[in-house]
Amino acid sequence: MTKKQMVSKKLSTESYKGVRDFFPEEMRLQKHIFSVMRESVELYGYEEYNASILEPAELYEAKSGEEIVKEQTYTFTDRGGRKVTLRPEMTPTVARMIASRSKSMPLPARWYSIPNLFRYEQPQKGRLREHFQLNVDLFGVKDISGDIEIISLAHFLMQAYGAKQSDYVIKINNRKITESLYKHYGIAEEEAYKLSKLIDKKNKISADTFDTGLELLVPKKASEFKAVLSSNKVVIETLGEDNEGVIELLQTIEGLKKLGIENVIFDQTLMRGFDYYTGIVFEIFDTHPDNMRSLFGGGRYDDLIDLFGGKDMPAVGFGTGDVTIKDFLEIHNLLPNLEKKADVYIVRPDKTSIIESMKIADGLRLAGLEVLVDLGTKKVADQIKQAEKSGASFVLFIGEEELKTNIFTLKHLASKEEIKKSITDIQTLLLEKK
Amino acid sequence: MTKKQMVSKKLSTESYKGVRDFFPEEMRLQKHIFSVMRESVELYGYEEYNASILEPAELYEAKSGEEIVKEQTYTFTDRGGRKVTLRPEMTPTVARMIASRSKSMPLPARWYSIPNLFRYEQPQKGRLREHFQLNVDLFGVKDISGDIEIISLAHFLMQAYGAKQSDYVIKINNRKITESLYKHYGIAEEEAYKLSKLIDKKNKISADTFDTGLELLVPKKASEFKAVLSSNKVVIETLGEDNEGVIELLQTIEGLKKLGIENVIFDQTLMRGFDYYTGIVFEIFDTHPDNMRSLFGGGRYDDLIDLFGGKDMPAVGFGTGDVTIKDFLEIHNLLPNLEKKADVYIVRPDKTSIIESMKIADGLRLAGLEVLVDLGTKKVADQIKQAEKSGASFVLFIGEEELKTNIFTLKHLASKEEIKKSITDIQTLLLEKK
Repeated sequence: MTKKQMVSKKLSTESYKGVRDFFPEEMRLQKHIFSVMRESVELYGYEEYNASILEPAELYEAKSGEEIVKEQTYTFTDRGGRKVTLRPEMTPTVARMIASRSKSMPLPARWYSIPNLFRYEQPQKGRLREHFQLNVDLFGVKDISGDIEIISLAHFLMQAYGAKQSDYVIKINNRKITESLYKHYGIAEEEAYKLSKLIDKKNKISADTFDTGLELLVPKKASEFKAVLSSNKVVIETLGEDNEGVIELLQTIEGLKKLGIENVIFDQTLMRGFDYYTGIVFEIFDTHPDNMRSLFGGGRYDDLIDLFGGKDMPAVGFGTGDVTIKDFLEIHNLLPNLEKKADVYIVRPDKTSIIESMKIADGLRLAGLEVLVDLGTKKVADQIKQAEKSGASFVLFIGEEELKTNIFTLKHLASKEEIKKSITDIQTLLLEKK
Repeated sequence: MTKKQMVSKKLSTESYKGVRDFFPEEMRLQKHIFSVMRESVELYGYEEYNASILEPAELYEAKSGEEIVKEQTYTFTDRGGRKVTLRPEMTPTVARMIASRSKSMPLPARWYSIPNLFRYEQPQKGRLREHFQLNVDLFGVKDISGDIEIISLAHFLMQAYGAKQSDYVIKINNRKITESLYKHYGIAEEEAYKLSKLIDKKNKISADTFDTGLELLVPKKASEFKAVLSSNKVVIETLGEDNEGVIELLQTIEGLKKLGIENVIFDQTLMRGFDYYTGIVFEIFDTHPDNMRSLFGGGRYDDLIDLFGGKDMPAVGFGTGDVTIKDFLEIHNLLPNLEKKADVYIVRPDKTSIIESMKIADGLRLAGLEVLVDLGTKKVADQIKQAEKSGASFVLFIGEEELKTNIFTLKHLASKEEIKKSITDIQTLLLEKK
């Protein structure tokens, strides 16, 4: 294509469908969401890891079946004939990484990451083709103290965003309870899978459709099973208080309540989509009537690492997405003021002092101050307007006169107050005001 | 695939070819590299932006020709028939974003990003299929004060990594000088393109091959042109000191020297690969004999935004990659100690105190302390070993006795010193030691 052809056909400024551009003001929000995540999980001693978004396709085919890989992921063949997938979730990646070191690494290992993930689906509110997801995982702890740490960390993070306990609810279940129930009702593996899917969809389908499905999958005992689904008490009575799943569940809830986490409830209809969970599963839901969405999801997956030939490795973790967190913060008015900020903006009354201004700016920056230098040839009044737009608290005037006398004027933009001082004194003052 | 099939065939723990896994210790280094970048550019008032790695393929086809897109990028067709490319560089993306707002945005705009970029090439030292690159761009400044700010910022960043001026050299050229020279020697557009490529390869090919190429492209005047290539003085004499390109170049170098940047040289053979540059171009090279690689590259590209129908928008910027920065820091011994760290590790002398320990830990975390709780059922001596591995400075013992008396033992791991105090006092002490 020649230069002329290039120019004749203007390129589109649109991004690819279903993904986002982060302009600086959107990036400030994204950075806020991520930094609260990082600070919170690091206070619990979790360490950050990462990997490429490119993964061998077989990583997902084994667990999810080739169908899902083809229909819901970005998968293509590279020029070396390798099938490669843009990661749709992080758990297979972290399982792969942990497995590669499982024989030598110190345990427990506390790991987190904030990867971007890709799903090929029709974009809609809260569901994009690319989103970011905090993933927090604890490896090497077999007993429920691990589940309690993970759930209390999720709660700690919600508090760090400024949420009150009434803003969300933590729903908790145990795969072992679900399996015990299926066993109790003599439900075979294939029906069990369909039944879990049906229960998962309960609130999205009509009561009739649900009942019909239940009668098909739990013949003769459908109404009995329905009673189990609608009462915690019936579940526990059916399985008995000495059932392993029940014991774990009650101890986890009791532990969380002792930690002051009151908004946790047992929900035997909580299924979660992933097949790899083996114990406690949980989700955190927004309680706001206009946004009753799932915000966090996680659980225990003790068998996954073994798929990679790693040694026996208990694991429990959760994930939470940037889009859902953003929606939650917006609807609960928890977004902080994220204006653009700078310490000082250098205004040049005459055009000659550009290099000297840059030199003074560098000195102030070395002291830790955010400094912008006006680079144009605008009038002083316009430079000050520019300073206001930049979010700077102060303007510093640097002209020939100031450079001669070594006395500079510093103006506070909000109060219009001015002082005249040496650069050293101005630096001290700006650092104090920072 | 059934569960049995899954288990029978162990999955590989290898990552995709040519990309990296970042285990926590590698991630600490990556975070160090990125945080120095962020801190430095933010001190100059640059704001972070980002976009998806997925871009419409036409974004690159227009500028680079379809050939390059096919051979050196990851490009595939999505299921909606859209051609999509994993971004190989960030400049087209930022140009697209700026163009979409160029009519309304306040100028100048100072933007940066640290995107991951993808190239389909044979992996080798310093060249991976996925790498990260700091991109810094200044929009809306037409005169060389913009070029000076951008180059001095690159220099500031090198200093922030701890580099001395002797560790690297800033080579600078001006596209306008190159074009003036080609015009002076009557070299037509097609030959000019080939000549630039030849000069770019000068140090990678034999002197004979170079000379042969030169005679072909600059017939009759090859030796004269060669003299131009080997002497700054001859370039300036040939074009005259009133040549626009020469004036800009000399003023830029003079400005940088006044800012204390002594390691800047004029190099008329500096070409840079990208076709979109229109003025000053520069590269920073490592001076270490074992790593004489290009670390930074950038320049002015005043016409690019116009490809998207944005208004006339002067632009100047640079990019620098995480892999080359890491290699530079390693060879110059500039990597800081990046050990795993934590403030305190809670050891439990008896097994009953887990929830109470977690509760105390949460209180300390709310005060800003990084706290790990031992979750296992190990002996005290093994818990302390675990604490040492975690990088914690202190261990805090929480058992039944301590909970009863409210007096806890805090042990400094390095000095083995112990004190006995209330949690409030311990918190104060830990915050002081932080």
